Amino acid sequence: MDKQKKTIGIVGGVGPYAGLDLNRKIFDHTLATNDQEHLPVLMASFSETIPDRTRYLLHGDVENPARGLYRVVALLNSSGATVAGIPCNTAHAQPIFHELVKRIHAGGLQIRLLNMISEVIAEVKSTFTGDTLVGILSTLGTYESGLYEAYFRRTGIPLLQPDKALAENVHAAIYHPDFGIKARSSPVTKKAGKIIKSAVRKLGDQGAEAVILGCTELPIALPCDTFQGIRLIDPATILARALIRDTYPEKLKPITG
Amino acid sequence: MDKQKKTIGIVGGVGPYAGLDLNRKIFDHTLATNDQEHLPVLMASFSETIPDRTRYLLHGDVENPARGLYRVVALLNSSGATVAGIPCNTAHAQPIFHELVKRIHAGGLQIRLLNMISEVIAEVKSTFTGDTLVGILSTLGTYESGLYEAYFRRTGIPLLQPDKALAENVHAAIYHPDFGIKARSSPVTKKAGKIIKSAVRKLGDQGAEAVILGCTELPIALPCDTFQGIRLIDPATILARALIRDTYPEKLKPITG
Repeated sequence: MDKQKKTIGIVGGVGPYAGLDLNRKIFDHTLATNDQEHLPVLMASFSETIPDRTRYLLHGDVENPARGLYRVVALLNSSGATVAGIPCNTAHAQPIFHELVKRIHAGGLQIRLLNMISEVIAEVKSTFTGDTLVGILSTLGTYESGLYEAYFRRTGIPLLQPDKALAENVHAAIYHPDFGIKARSSPVTKKAGKIIKSAVRKLGDQGAEAVILGCTELPIALPCDTFQGIRLIDPATILARALIRDTYPEKLKPITG
Repeated sequence: MDKQKKTIGIVGGVGPYAGLDLNRKIFDHTLATNDQEHLPVLMASFSETIPDRTRYLLHGDVENPARGLYRVVALLNSSGATVAGIPCNTAHAQPIFHELVKRIHAGGLQIRLLNMISEVIAEVKSTFTGDTLVGILSTLGTYESGLYEAYFRRTGIPLLQPDKALAENVHAAIYHPDFGIKARSSPVTKKAGKIIKSAVRKLGDQGAEAVILGCTELPIALPCDTFQGIRLIDPATILARALIRDTYPEKLKPITG
């Protein structure tokens, strides 16, 4: 639109509801009392052109999702977006994100892509002390690729991963074609909700004081700040606030409570 | 993206949450069990550039919103959208919508703009008989401009408008800076919810068998198919289904129940 105006871009479609969730959080965290006070946001949801991130990382039998992600970032850029975020944790695994950043540089795009996981790390470091145990729930793609471990290694904050069986359960709650959140999210099925709540509880039993809901589908099932005394960290909320801070910091709603 | 692919465009920002609501309904009504099966959707939410529709219709002290709406439609078009919808009832009032369509023709845009109200009329005609009384709740802009009356006149189906006092209450439930849905929608305030439920009940008491929630903010407060025996008609759901039918009819989820 107006070339002087900063526009927030959302790489949607990974998954479609995660895009909506990030977009809603941008609106929710903006200081606005009418339509006109809201920020310019462009969301491109092109799910079909971006292969499944976890499948690429675990099996490698689809093309690198970086290619499809790049096309969406390029479209957002040519449509006027000046900054963008991807509401998909798994897309931030090194083999995908690094390739995407390389393509953005090579393509000479004039858009700044925020890194959701780096934003989460910054938030965790500013909120917790070094001896706080932080847990993580995610897809198997994020789990097996050691995405959060790699980012956490430098912080000094210990990261608690679930065992493999629990990780597989959580993955099913996201991906299962009958009860998974990607297939049925309005509302989330009872089965998916139960698995995710039980997983948070198990990490809490092992000493986690906070749990990162490290797949953007998870907070759809558990849209709270704390659950049974355990602080829940939602990367999409942190990314939404980072996108506002990056473009219109004066419009960022203060955190209350 | 892919020039062969049909892309659905959403004129977002009128209001921002109504855009999200339409986008969610497109996903909800698509036959898909994973990300890749979802349809390509582009949503441009540029609220600041589109003056308030009701204010323009009632007071005329802001520029015609058609100008801002046109810029968004043109952006969607140049970004690859082949069809578009506007999830704002008031924007369909003749002085705005007619001007927008004129600009689209003059600009030579290659995008088909669906008319949400025409889609609602088609749905009402196929669902109800000529002697069914259908009620309507809306903003004062839609109310005073006689938008739905003008469209209904040709159908033969009688339309029940609320009296002025009730219409003003409903308008406040949408627009009030403290409790209105445009200012506070996650969650909707108790006061706004109460006003809207009571308004539906009053139209029902006067014989309405169905009520059109004729402002895209209203179904956020009352997200049901029926309320106390009265069938609720949500123009955004009808528009979402029309956009899918127009692009990928084979992906349209059948209506159940």
